[in-house]
Amino acid sequence: MLVRNFIGSVDPGMRSILSGVDSYAQVLKPGSIISGATIGVVEDSHHPKFAIGDVVSGGFGWTELGVSDGRGLLKLTDRRVPYSCHIGVLGVPGLTAFFGLERIAQLKDNETLLVTSAAGTVGATAGQLAKLRGCHVTGIAGSDDKCSWLKNVCGFDEVINYKTVGDLDMAIAEACSGGIDVLFDNVGNTMIDRVIPRMKVGGRIVVSGQVADYNKAPEDVPGIHNTSAFITHRLRMEGLVVYDDFRDFSRAKEEMIGHIMKGDLHYREHVTEGVANMPEAFISLFTGESFGRRLVQLGDIPEQRQ
Amino acid sequence: MLVRNFIGSVDPGMRSILSGVDSYAQVLKPGSIISGATIGVVEDSHHPKFAIGDVVSGGFGWTELGVSDGRGLLKLTDRRVPYSCHIGVLGVPGLTAFFGLERIAQLKDNETLLVTSAAGTVGATAGQLAKLRGCHVTGIAGSDDKCSWLKNVCGFDEVINYKTVGDLDMAIAEACSGGIDVLFDNVGNTMIDRVIPRMKVGGRIVVSGQVADYNKAPEDVPGIHNTSAFITHRLRMEGLVVYDDFRDFSRAKEEMIGHIMKGDLHYREHVTEGVANMPEAFISLFTGESFGRRLVQLGDIPEQRQ
Repeated sequence: MLVRNFIGSVDPGMRSILSGVDSYAQVLKPGSIISGATIGVVEDSHHPKFAIGDVVSGGFGWTELGVSDGRGLLKLTDRRVPYSCHIGVLGVPGLTAFFGLERIAQLKDNETLLVTSAAGTVGATAGQLAKLRGCHVTGIAGSDDKCSWLKNVCGFDEVINYKTVGDLDMAIAEACSGGIDVLFDNVGNTMIDRVIPRMKVGGRIVVSGQVADYNKAPEDVPGIHNTSAFITHRLRMEGLVVYDDFRDFSRAKEEMIGHIMKGDLHYREHVTEGVANMPEAFISLFTGESFGRRLVQLGDIPEQRQ
Repeated sequence: MLVRNFIGSVDPGMRSILSGVDSYAQVLKPGSIISGATIGVVEDSHHPKFAIGDVVSGGFGWTELGVSDGRGLLKLTDRRVPYSCHIGVLGVPGLTAFFGLERIAQLKDNETLLVTSAAGTVGATAGQLAKLRGCHVTGIAGSDDKCSWLKNVCGFDEVINYKTVGDLDMAIAEACSGGIDVLFDNVGNTMIDRVIPRMKVGGRIVVSGQVADYNKAPEDVPGIHNTSAFITHRLRMEGLVVYDDFRDFSRAKEEMIGHIMKGDLHYREHVTEGVANMPEAFISLFTGESFGRRLVQLGDIPEQRQ
């Protein structure tokens, strides 16, 4: 089957693969297609389960056209939310938030959550899902616009603009004055290290992303120094790759679609046009200028009937 | 009730309290008794449950005499193992090994375990309990005597003398050539950081002790840099304070007594005499010269009938 992608994504996690610091590195050579989630329409098919005109989500990467035997493709038949949701709030970022809270943090009602890089799709979704469980949620983001959206639209209890706040440690201590049960971190080592002294006994640290560290060699990463608190405060730190939860994706998506329909789960998209602009969109992920799920429109989006 | 202690213990974990780096610090002033596990005999009692001559384990600290209302004291009636076991392999160190493997690592049969400071009671017990589950166990220790005991008496599969091995990273890679499921660490940050690249997907790091870091301020601790592996390798790192498991202590002790009686669980004690020598015994914990559970004999040990 031949698929013409109309939306592609750029993701910070690709940075370590491009740097060659992990085991996928050997796959990427000059001329390789950089991987990434896509949504497209089937243009030609010899596959019994996919017909011309079907809309599919997949992982064709930074490319307008893809050839597939159907493996890893999902037909998008749901018409309640726009197609783009399936690559954002219902895609890897939203599912990372969902399973980061459910499986890794094992979040309980009314706990205290601190989310970093909070205006990204992972962070904003994590914060809103926690709010739905009665949690006290603080978000750290890098602009007043982002902070305002988190507070006024997403319902975060406290927001901190790390670029203007001055003393970030003090701001975290004030926003989470009773201590933190769960740190949902998308930033990296330095952020985790500074938050550890504010964690409650039994606190959990979700290592969801490390956007500040992807560009650094391990020896240049400042490092986590406050490890004695792991004993005294019984802390747990764990990373996740959301694909491990694929058996539960439908349940999670169904729950999140329900929240979106009720107006309880908001998301933002930041759309760039054209495959040639994907590198620029990718680089912008690390400067903080993106606001919302960074997508690249690769072609016409098919009409979507309710 | 008045208790005359005949065995006292010195523990590396006291170091952070003495340094004032954790929240217990305010309790310790000049003239305070340094805390620690003890075993003693009741000399006088107005307590209905304790009679003169009863042997009790408690936490009177670095002192020959203690007055108590009975809280926190446990009458030692078991005659199958020497009294001193209750402050070592069946006390906090042994229980830390037991629950570190069971609750924190959630060890499975036939996994690969790396234990640091392996000739200490925590490390040696952890390694032997893992061997009883068919695991491949490697221990790191600081002398040939210790390594020989771990291999020939405790049955460790591989041992590494970190003081003489030269390239420790290479030695770990060779001893655990298939990767490591569980790192049971009693040493600290630098050790954890160097082992992370050898961890398997789904690996667990038990933060059991930090003997190399207790003497350092957080900013002087080298830090954990390899945190990106927490995502790519789905690692989990968690600390424990074994008192959280007190409800399960009897079950754990009963199981470990069974292993001791069958000759499947070995332990060593390194006994110093006299309360005045406790500071020296304590300091020796950090130089590596202790070999086995470091105890201080404070008085005559009552005869123990089988």
